[in-house]
Amino acid sequence: MKKVINDPGDFIRESLAGLTRAHADLLRMSPDPLFIYRADAPVQGKTAIVSGGGSGHEPLHAGYVGAGMLDAACPGEVFTSPTPDQMLEAARRVNGGSGVLFIVKNYSGDIMNFEMAAELASAEGIPVASVIIDDDVAVRNSLYTQGRRGVGTTVAAEKICGAAAERGLPLSDLAELCRRVSSAGRSIGVALSSCTVPAAGEPTFILGEEEMEFGIGIHGEPGRERIKLKKADEITELMAEAIIEDPEYRRTLQEWDNETAAPRERETSDPPFAKGDSVLLFVNGMGGTPLSELYIVYRKAAEVAEKHGLRILRSLVGNYITSLEMQGFSLTLLRMDEQSLSLWDAPVLTPALRWGR
Amino acid sequence: MKKVINDPGDFIRESLAGLTRAHADLLRMSPDPLFIYRADAPVQGKTAIVSGGGSGHEPLHAGYVGAGMLDAACPGEVFTSPTPDQMLEAARRVNGGSGVLFIVKNYSGDIMNFEMAAELASAEGIPVASVIIDDDVAVRNSLYTQGRRGVGTTVAAEKICGAAAERGLPLSDLAELCRRVSSAGRSIGVALSSCTVPAAGEPTFILGEEEMEFGIGIHGEPGRERIKLKKADEITELMAEAIIEDPEYRRTLQEWDNETAAPRERETSDPPFAKGDSVLLFVNGMGGTPLSELYIVYRKAAEVAEKHGLRILRSLVGNYITSLEMQGFSLTLLRMDEQSLSLWDAPVLTPALRWGR
Repeated sequence: MKKVINDPGDFIRESLAGLTRAHADLLRMSPDPLFIYRADAPVQGKTAIVSGGGSGHEPLHAGYVGAGMLDAACPGEVFTSPTPDQMLEAARRVNGGSGVLFIVKNYSGDIMNFEMAAELASAEGIPVASVIIDDDVAVRNSLYTQGRRGVGTTVAAEKICGAAAERGLPLSDLAELCRRVSSAGRSIGVALSSCTVPAAGEPTFILGEEEMEFGIGIHGEPGRERIKLKKADEITELMAEAIIEDPEYRRTLQEWDNETAAPRERETSDPPFAKGDSVLLFVNGMGGTPLSELYIVYRKAAEVAEKHGLRILRSLVGNYITSLEMQGFSLTLLRMDEQSLSLWDAPVLTPALRWGR
Repeated sequence: MKKVINDPGDFIRESLAGLTRAHADLLRMSPDPLFIYRADAPVQGKTAIVSGGGSGHEPLHAGYVGAGMLDAACPGEVFTSPTPDQMLEAARRVNGGSGVLFIVKNYSGDIMNFEMAAELASAEGIPVASVIIDDDVAVRNSLYTQGRRGVGTTVAAEKICGAAAERGLPLSDLAELCRRVSSAGRSIGVALSSCTVPAAGEPTFILGEEEMEFGIGIHGEPGRERIKLKKADEITELMAEAIIEDPEYRRTLQEWDNETAAPRERETSDPPFAKGDSVLLFVNGMGGTPLSELYIVYRKAAEVAEKHGLRILRSLVGNYITSLEMQGFSLTLLRMDEQSLSLWDAPVLTPALRWGR
């Protein structure tokens, strides 16, 4: 696998340097500890939102920093959790006096480090709440995860909560909204090829010429099974059905917040989707699949969703949470109510999502 | 090469069906002859803009249909020119009484077919002007091209002229503006891998594990030379220098319009870039290169441009004119004046470019 890089050890910093230079009107970079933050941070009185995670999923998360979305993003090395000092310093920098929401994808390293940062920030008097996104229906536990992995719903949660924060939602309500978004979203992904982590130089896994991985994770974690490559419509139907039927909807949602400090379990008993529900349909490219193919998938996914009586009110198609140059894609369905719809439509001005105003 | 497709013969239509379904608020599809047009077309009194070309470069062109950019896009088969009946019917559909500008990338098939459509439309009393984009400095003639190929500047020309049309610019002035944009832009591309045309099923060309193609065309046409894979900064510097120095700036620009019908030659004697010029810096992914790598390139390209005294006023980084799943990227520099800057910043609402308002 060839890459457009210099020294693999400089990959993240050079990429973020380019990002902040191209979007100097929106972003600033803290070099050490490393994080990206809004040029106008802190926004006084607004609840701040900080996310982060391993790099390699661009534009997630740094590409979503800006008005109406994130206040800061903490990038780790490729597919490696960022460290608590990054999150703590980011929280200090963007806290506008109303506290900070951490949006955390459900990977063990991320959870541990965000939790430590939350404790440190709280000890300094910065109110922090954390919400875990765990929307991937593919598998129950995974290489880096207890429970379900966090994938596409993260993008929607950052957009919706970002808009709510702009509208003045206080921290506790913002955390509750974020939990509702997380529990209303379901995703699944497939890979047609592996990606290669720059520092490793070799593909993370090998797929045969006729094989695909059904239920792939965004770090190349194994999915449900390795199956024979199918036609777009067959793959899409399998995926959409896996999301909509989701037999394992009674799941535990690990969450914790500033008040309780310790993780606790919550049972979610609502089935994710029912006839008549309004949804966002999100077809996400893993990085190496052309947009033309993503729209072929969208076409079929919309058909399956409508067959189940779902009303597609909003759509998103493109590379939003990737796995370097992996060929493949993921589907996300998010149940939307009037509030989340209005927040989705609200203005956003970031490098990767930009509309309104 | 694996693809997320059904029957290769349905590739274009299924992809466009997905596009128009996902963006039903913006777009409509004419199934036969095939073209995509603004849902609110024709816009009475506005000069309409129609572009098109072979498919496989998504989001170009159909992803740029919408308010502030194109009124219609005519897609051919993958890497194959659309036919005159598509362009003629699109012109009829979007003409709001003020005529139609055809924006044509410099490939022989496209030029021939757009020219024929222009003649047919003129014969029906629809005023048509055509402008050719030929900004690729890599080679003088190419597999499908006499003169220079049309690449990245096309995106900027469609954005800038689309905004000017919204502001009421009449056809002749719009054509003149488009010519100025075309002559102010320069591009060059590289490939690290080939793409595979769905109907062919085999890679268009083969590159060795340590090779790259310097000056690649967006259909896999040969460039200046096949060279050893270099580091990102070395590649970027070679490319930026090739654009900025551009020794062949005295070039002929084939153009023709409704009045003259026949092509005529124009000499462009301005060197493209001089110290103190304001520019748009556009780093474009070919489809299979991660965004993180494009920002590494942006970082170095900005450095080289500034070393030459250019002032980067605007930036665009992402997959905007692609070559299916090819790994590689192109650089475009566009000299901007106050007018083009203001038009670039004007609101746009299309699937792939969206800002303002």
